[in-house]
Amino acid sequence: MPFSVVGQSVPRVDGEEKVTGRTQFVADQEMRGLLHARLFLSPYAHARIRRIPAAAARAVPGVVAVLTADDLPFGDAVPNVRGRCLLARGETRFAGDPVAVVVAETEEAAADGLERLASGAEFDPLPALVDPVAAADPAAPLVQPGLAGKSAEASLHAAVKVEEEANDQRPSNVTGRVRFVRGDIERGLRESALVVGRTFRTSVVHQAYIEPHATTAAFDPSSRRLTVWTATQGLFYSRENVAQVLGLPESSVRIIPMAVGGGFGAKILLLEPLAGALAMLLGRPVRVVLTRSDEFRTATPAPQSTLEVRLGARRDGTLVAIQAQLLFDAGALPGAPLNIAALMLGGNYQAPHLDIQGREILTHKAPIGAYRAPGAPQAAFALESVVDDLARGLGLDPIEFRLRNASQGGDPMPSGEPWPRIGLRESLAAIQEDPVWRHRERDGRGVGVAAGGWLGGLEPASACIRLNTDGGAQVIVGSIDISGTATGLAQIAAEMLGLPVSRVRLVGADSDSAPAAGMSGGSKITYSVGSAVVKAAEDARRQLLALAARRLEASEADLEITGGVVGVRGVPARTIAVADLVKLTSGFGAGNPPIFGVASEAIVQRAPAFGAHVARIHLDADSGRVRVVDYAVAQDVGRAINPAAVRGQIHGGVAQGVGWALLERMLYDEQGSVATGTFLDYALPRATDVPPIRINLVEVPSERGPYGAKGVGEPPVVPVAAAIANAIMDASGARVEELPIVPEVVVAALRRAPSV
Amino acid sequence: MPFSVVGQSVPRVDGEEKVTGRTQFVADQEMRGLLHARLFLSPYAHARIRRIPAAAARAVPGVVAVLTADDLPFGDAVPNVRGRCLLARGETRFAGDPVAVVVAETEEAAADGLERLASGAEFDPLPALVDPVAAADPAAPLVQPGLAGKSAEASLHAAVKVEEEANDQRPSNVTGRVRFVRGDIERGLRESALVVGRTFRTSVVHQAYIEPHATTAAFDPSSRRLTVWTATQGLFYSRENVAQVLGLPESSVRIIPMAVGGGFGAKILLLEPLAGALAMLLGRPVRVVLTRSDEFRTATPAPQSTLEVRLGARRDGTLVAIQAQLLFDAGALPGAPLNIAALMLGGNYQAPHLDIQGREILTHKAPIGAYRAPGAPQAAFALESVVDDLARGLGLDPIEFRLRNASQGGDPMPSGEPWPRIGLRESLAAIQEDPVWRHRERDGRGVGVAAGGWLGGLEPASACIRLNTDGGAQVIVGSIDISGTATGLAQIAAEMLGLPVSRVRLVGADSDSAPAAGMSGGSKITYSVGSAVVKAAEDARRQLLALAARRLEASEADLEITGGVVGVRGVPARTIAVADLVKLTSGFGAGNPPIFGVASEAIVQRAPAFGAHVARIHLDADSGRVRVVDYAVAQDVGRAINPAAVRGQIHGGVAQGVGWALLERMLYDEQGSVATGTFLDYALPRATDVPPIRINLVEVPSERGPYGAKGVGEPPVVPVAAAIANAIMDASGARVEELPIVPEVVVAALRRAPSV
Repeated sequence: MPFSVVGQSVPRVDGEEKVTGRTQFVADQEMRGLLHARLFLSPYAHARIRRIPAAAARAVPGVVAVLTADDLPFGDAVPNVRGRCLLARGETRFAGDPVAVVVAETEEAAADGLERLASGAEFDPLPALVDPVAAADPAAPLVQPGLAGKSAEASLHAAVKVEEEANDQRPSNVTGRVRFVRGDIERGLRESALVVGRTFRTSVVHQAYIEPHATTAAFDPSSRRLTVWTATQGLFYSRENVAQVLGLPESSVRIIPMAVGGGFGAKILLLEPLAGALAMLLGRPVRVVLTRSDEFRTATPAPQSTLEVRLGARRDGTLVAIQAQLLFDAGALPGAPLNIAALMLGGNYQAPHLDIQGREILTHKAPIGAYRAPGAPQAAFALESVVDDLARGLGLDPIEFRLRNASQGGDPMPSGEPWPRIGLRESLAAIQEDPVWRHRERDGRGVGVAAGGWLGGLEPASACIRLNTDGGAQVIVGSIDISGTATGLAQIAAEMLGLPVSRVRLVGADSDSAPAAGMSGGSKITYSVGSAVVKAAEDARRQLLALAARRLEASEADLEITGGVVGVRGVPARTIAVADLVKLTSGFGAGNPPIFGVASEAIVQRAPAFGAHVARIHLDADSGRVRVVDYAVAQDVGRAINPAAVRGQIHGGVAQGVGWALLERMLYDEQGSVATGTFLDYALPRATDVPPIRINLVEVPSERGPYGAKGVGEPPVVPVAAAIANAIMDASGARVEELPIVPEVVVAALRRAPSV
Repeated sequence: MPFSVVGQSVPRVDGEEKVTGRTQFVADQEMRGLLHARLFLSPYAHARIRRIPAAAARAVPGVVAVLTADDLPFGDAVPNVRGRCLLARGETRFAGDPVAVVVAETEEAAADGLERLASGAEFDPLPALVDPVAAADPAAPLVQPGLAGKSAEASLHAAVKVEEEANDQRPSNVTGRVRFVRGDIERGLRESALVVGRTFRTSVVHQAYIEPHATTAAFDPSSRRLTVWTATQGLFYSRENVAQVLGLPESSVRIIPMAVGGGFGAKILLLEPLAGALAMLLGRPVRVVLTRSDEFRTATPAPQSTLEVRLGARRDGTLVAIQAQLLFDAGALPGAPLNIAALMLGGNYQAPHLDIQGREILTHKAPIGAYRAPGAPQAAFALESVVDDLARGLGLDPIEFRLRNASQGGDPMPSGEPWPRIGLRESLAAIQEDPVWRHRERDGRGVGVAAGGWLGGLEPASACIRLNTDGGAQVIVGSIDISGTATGLAQIAAEMLGLPVSRVRLVGADSDSAPAAGMSGGSKITYSVGSAVVKAAEDARRQLLALAARRLEASEADLEITGGVVGVRGVPARTIAVADLVKLTSGFGAGNPPIFGVASEAIVQRAPAFGAHVARIHLDADSGRVRVVDYAVAQDVGRAINPAAVRGQIHGGVAQGVGWALLERMLYDEQGSVATGTFLDYALPRATDVPPIRINLVEVPSERGPYGAKGVGEPPVVPVAAAIANAIMDASGARVEELPIVPEVVVAALRRAPSV
């Protein structure tokens, strides 16, 4: 079936207002009686709070209140989700732990009050556990002694259900374990003609969104209703948590989702409960905004990891053994993406023998959060580096080696579940044809390849489609658009309704009126919400055709909708405009019900999306500086609903991947203080760091997604660091084992390397 | 079936915030960059606009723009709906016609600019047609020469479809006619033993809401989206008109309905298109707020009418002839409630011979609008006065006389259609038992009775019900709550879902995300939207029980929901909380679709609601002052979903009816200028003017309404003036023929009356 709207590149509906600066963010809103809050963050990773000079700060003109944990009659005794932590009570657990909040009439007064707090606060520093290996020692003091149960975040950030091994009975800082075993790993290693093992380290990476976290809350004491304006990726998740922390019914909390100025997984829940608590206590609207320095100290970056990977293969290139030990430093609260990392590490390629173990360790650092494909860039960096070494050691073409072992639909994942239909092989085959790869010999060394993907999230969703009396349609969903999904969802509906996409508008409603939807995480909005939109559009179409059939005295089966007009197939004169049909459903005494298509879906069939990347780099051997000079991506997207938007996601993923690969890391000193608290210390890729990117959209349709689409938000970031690392190997024979690959890492690797 | 929630008196959800002054109205909103607009209204009823000193007004500091019709590239050439009129072009057609608008940085600057305009504007006054009889003269100049087609308002304000007679071909100021004929009126009059005929006059009455009209609009030029915050009774009607006037797709206009500080029919569409036009032209948010004086001059009051009614009956009390001539002065645009007045006048009582004719006349006065049961208080005043005289003349008990002739289900309306099931007789029978009526002889004269009702509006509607993970529910509708309908709709859903009403919240969404619904007019929200809510709740209940059946391994038919818990009938241990069921539909990988009940309904079966009122008055014969000292209402409500709210509607209706009866009128001088432009000149009832009111809720269930409910917003105002007039007759033998019954009307009637 040829599509009329799906597959067309359509500009993002929010594009112009964003690039012209007209988008209103939370911090732009004006509101009667608004108060401004600033957080006082612990300067110590671990300390007893001795004295907070609240009275002195309150004396600052314009300061309305200075609150500590004792002033907040809300919340969990021991919160296990960062966003549910209001203020530290008694002890601080990371440098950046919020200890008090200053609320003032103006931002300036709040800053002055904060200064007064900072200069007079007294802490008793305690030993801080900064190194996860030390923290994992059973004798180590506990970072979170009272923590009961598991973090809810693990299941949010990973796209898989967490089925970790039972913890030791004894409390320790090891708060999560995962193990996948298949066959006999020792036998697999014995049977291998070549075994390569390496240990990789990745750094804490910050999501580095341009808009800092900002939340405004207002409370009406008579109706006991709380309204929260916030840049969140998760409307209903945010509502549920705010309601629970503040002891309100969910229906009394209205989350109004504001434009998200960069999320990448970090804008799910952070300030919402605290802002709500302040609004309830103070009886006025309160806005909490983080500074950039606050962001680096108190928000939730991606975890550092240590990944030991050992692979064994037969001489013919058949992979037979995958062994890995993963360690994720979760910071002060659990929630590391253990499972997904283990699944990707052991699942992308098939081997009869497999043993993957993972541990999550708590330390006195900021609790980690989700960042675009959590755990997968780390896993891909480790896996794809060793895969490359193995191919090289066996004298095999790296893509051929991957193709020989790449998983396909029906093959088992480490968990034993079968892979659904995936496009890993198709992506590898496609990237083989890219000129950079084909001409790599001729053009000289410095070309690396890597593959990787993402399982894709799942979450139930509803969608509504309402037809308007002018013949246009509105699609109403509860999902947040952080990546252009609004445009794609409108296309999906337009296709089904026979309308031009310009006549269909997507409405992301607030939590009061939106149909249910999961958070924008796990690359699942187009897949899960989009499936509900297809069904809702079918429902609306059916209602429309039933009404048209009565008016045109024709059978529904003979009707078609084209360009907003319903006609009888083969009878050009028998038509009625959609607008005229909808008018029959509106107005005093109208006899036809409104055309209102609805669907609720809960897909449990995943649609993992794989891609293969090729990087060409230039390496300056003297300085160790690496520059990515050319780049190509073959990405399976199932079906590109809006190719321009899909390409945009790939561009963004590669750009962020270059950051992961070459630039980005948060550094902590031995006491656990953040040494990289500004964008002067924390290096983000700039335009000149991002290479030209050729994109080949591979379409291996998903079984359940709308028109075969798969989620494409996260996958493109996954293989980038590995492709660059493999290009460095290709250029120099040096194997880098650490992210980011800053010059000193390259220089050290070059020193270790045999000369090529 | 006993109800657990329906029939319980539940406080209005918005009550506390309203009485404590916390409700935010449009004029309370703060907004970045907001501009303030004031209208310059024509001081002349009919004039040529010669000069508007825009430059002088623009020179006032803070004034940003001064605009006339020539500056507005929007709208209809000849708008036929008041709210679609932006600014007068060339000529003014009523004193109060907006001629220009001043937009300024502050309200004060706008007022200063307005003063400059007013002092320098020049008009050429033209002869004004103020008297509708003169205007009806075929030789009279036309008030609206260019007017093409009928007003859309007629069908909005009346609760019936307008099926008026074809106009004369010749253009005239008679813009609407209606005629209903049955039998042979001359024969009916001949066969009558007694014929009573009288001519009644009613005044222009203002809806006198406390909150003046206020609308804010903001336009985003990149997305070309217009957002309008307004106190409207009609979300989608307002959107449709704004979109049409401004040439935007409906989906590009978002109407955010704000709290309505009194509507009564007048807050449907007035400033929305103009505010939108200003926002589009000026590129900043603009708020237009009317002053009280503006309200009296430029808004849309209820029409004045002249009603000649002649009834004939046999000696035994059988009504045989109904003859009437109705004349409504519509002001400068069509839209008078001719049809409904004619239907009520000829339909409440049965007579074999009937001839009712009505005409709508345009004059140079403010175009009229809807006001609570448009046309019905006027019709009831005339009809019930003559009915009373007829009973008196025949020596019959006035209630017995009414009961003998009152229509019941199946009897024909003047249009020939049959009445559906109605409770006129039941209400009359109930009011007979009221102590004031029963003891009227013993307690002395001054007691009057009257009956009346309202057809009840119809309009298609959808509704959604979303269950929350804490077990609560949200009902999402597109109707505006002007009378407590939100509380009743929540009760309707709670009843069906087996939840306490405190766990169900009604959300009146904005036009972006709301399900379709008609405007809050015609007393139809509980009836039409409530019917959709019942069905949506059934749908949600079905989904919930299907899920529960799987979890409890029981048959759906054996399940019941009580207090938020689903249980197996007769097996107390087999239960699961609604909250736990809903949690199975939410979160990563959840396998059950969200529970989301939806229904779309288009009821075409009316549910007219009748009532009978008894008033006891005290008449001071010297001064002519009338005081209502006791009052009783028997009102058929079908089913009282929320008895407290229904009683509140009856209280309000009686209070406004006392205003109609005794106090309220707008006066115009011979040039058509408004003489009653403030609340000093226009008398509203005060608390001391409103008698104690006993209420008897009669429940004759409607065939299609939710749990049998009928609309009760409008009916209670209908018989009040007639009951008071009949009490005056009872007290004094004087028949008043004019509303309001101010002292001079009473004195004149007393002079005419035979002594009793």
